[in-house]
Amino acid sequence: MLKKMILPLTLAAAILGLSSAVYAEESPAEAAVEYRQGAYTITKTHFGRMGAMVKGATEFNAGEFKKDAEVVAMMSQIVGRGFELKDSITDDSEAKPNIWTDPEGFKSKLEAFQVEAANLVKAADTGDMEQIKPVFGKVAETCKACHKEYRED
Amino acid sequence: MLKKMILPLTLAAAILGLSSAVYAEESPAEAAVEYRQGAYTITKTHFGRMGAMVKGATEFNAGEFKKDAEVVAMMSQIVGRGFELKDSITDDSEAKPNIWTDPEGFKSKLEAFQVEAANLVKAADTGDMEQIKPVFGKVAETCKACHKEYRED
Repeated sequence: MLKKMILPLTLAAAILGLSSAVYAEESPAEAAVEYRQGAYTITKTHFGRMGAMVKGATEFNAGEFKKDAEVVAMMSQIVGRGFELKDSITDDSEAKPNIWTDPEGFKSKLEAFQVEAANLVKAADTGDMEQIKPVFGKVAETCKACHKEYRED
Repeated sequence: MLKKMILPLTLAAAILGLSSAVYAEESPAEAAVEYRQGAYTITKTHFGRMGAMVKGATEFNAGEFKKDAEVVAMMSQIVGRGFELKDSITDDSEAKPNIWTDPEGFKSKLEAFQVEAANLVKAADTGDMEQIKPVFGKVAETCKACHKEYRED
């Protein structure tokens, strides 16, 4: 659909003498993909920072860990907005169509992520790595479970 | 610098028989750009949602406004990490080199954003659009002030 629209739009823009900056408005699907990929990039970065502390690759800093956990928890709350537009798949997207043909399944996977990410903030409050570790593992499982079903490899 | 590295990497990968998925590891600069652009995409989206309520284009929902303000405030706290890598400019980036030649100036602009974004959360707590409006305007000013100095047009 999108691809079919690009040529006519480009032609129309050329005829009207518009620069690419004028006609290259983001489509709603592109905006949705950009939004959710932004949320995942931030999630991945802060999850990675926590992972390095969990593995002992970097020194455990309870305050930083807490902040990272809060960022991931917030991302878990907002990333769903990026999937609200049905079939919002672009060339840049790794989303699978079953996100929208199996909305209940996708929703349950997203909610599991939200629950465990919130639990990780609570665990981070203890400042005790022994309590944090298993919860961190559970968050990682919710990531993998959703990617397995709903993300292209 | 980055461009100069791409050809040798591609050749090396071809010689080693690696697929693009293997050798196309993100550079630190690319990762930094992706991170801060992710944070700005999320900021822009939630700021836009608030802006629509401020202008009356969408109905004011105090709870949603508060959540949007909290997201923007958190992004204001984390986006600076995306600029820590000196001279992290790529083809995708709109960052200007003076971010790193004038670090104090950039820092003061970023801090102004953080202060006003936190003030907006407090204003949102009142649930009173008359109190929210001027603070929203101040946040917008901090965005513009930083973009004017440190972002390519």
